Amino acid sequence: MACIFCRIIKGELPSFKIFESDKTLAFLDINPLSHGHTLIIPKHHGVSLTDIPDDSLTEVLSVAKKVALAVKAENWNLLQNNGRLAHQEVDHVHFHVIPKPNEKEGLGVGWPQMKVDMDKLKSYSEEVKSAVSKL
Amino acid sequence: MACIFCRIIKGELPSFKIFESDKTLAFLDINPLSHGHTLIIPKHHGVSLTDIPDDSLTEVLSVAKKVALAVKAENWNLLQNNGRLAHQEVDHVHFHVIPKPNEKEGLGVGWPQMKVDMDKLKSYSEEVKSAVSKL
Repeated sequence: MACIFCRIIKGELPSFKIFESDKTLAFLDINPLSHGHTLIIPKHHGVSLTDIPDDSLTEVLSVAKKVALAVKAENWNLLQNNGRLAHQEVDHVHFHVIPKPNEKEGLGVGWPQMKVDMDKLKSYSEEVKSAVSKL
Repeated sequence: MACIFCRIIKGELPSFKIFESDKTLAFLDINPLSHGHTLIIPKHHGVSLTDIPDDSLTEVLSVAKKVALAVKAENWNLLQNNGRLAHQEVDHVHFHVIPKPNEKEGLGVGWPQMKVDMDKLKSYSEEVKSAVSKL
């Protein structure tokens, strides 16, 4: 088994666990962006969020809330990356809770807004709405 | 009622809705970072994730999966910002689904890793684990 998060779940690799249940594990990131940076993972193995069954995800946001309170984050980001281009580095779904104590530490957010045509956006929304309704 | 997302929920302001249920609304971001950029919000008003009851959050990740599939995102980021310093702009909890089609479009991710002392991280993890267990 090559997945390092699955090995952490099985206890074959060490981690700094802060929460564990049947479905979910949370542990401190050993390469943190800020003090308190934590990873929350479903125990169900999957590379992308779309690979994880809904019932393995029901606790994640509740645990994220607890982590944010426990690490006393006032400003913080919840981030889950899918794919190399989107900065995913371990191929097992993980949610980052990243405190943002100041401009320098924590997640750097780049926000390159596009210009959009509202009529095109409206017709695209109808297309997406139809696609969502079929899932 | 000043909250623009509450006004969107009530239908007082227009939006390009793509999913709606009793607890959750999803609509296209009108200032997108990439084609398909979508916001998912709990209908329960709250500024930070820690303000939202767990039962208002149970659908969010399921809807995020559907949105990612519907907009055909291969690489994408799920992002939820808490606080101005963490890039929150609207004071009603919202989750961004942001496709990352190429280096230029989509979320820009800055990753300023810290150096950490593993012994200190271990003892901090015990402190956080204890705090989480009391929540």
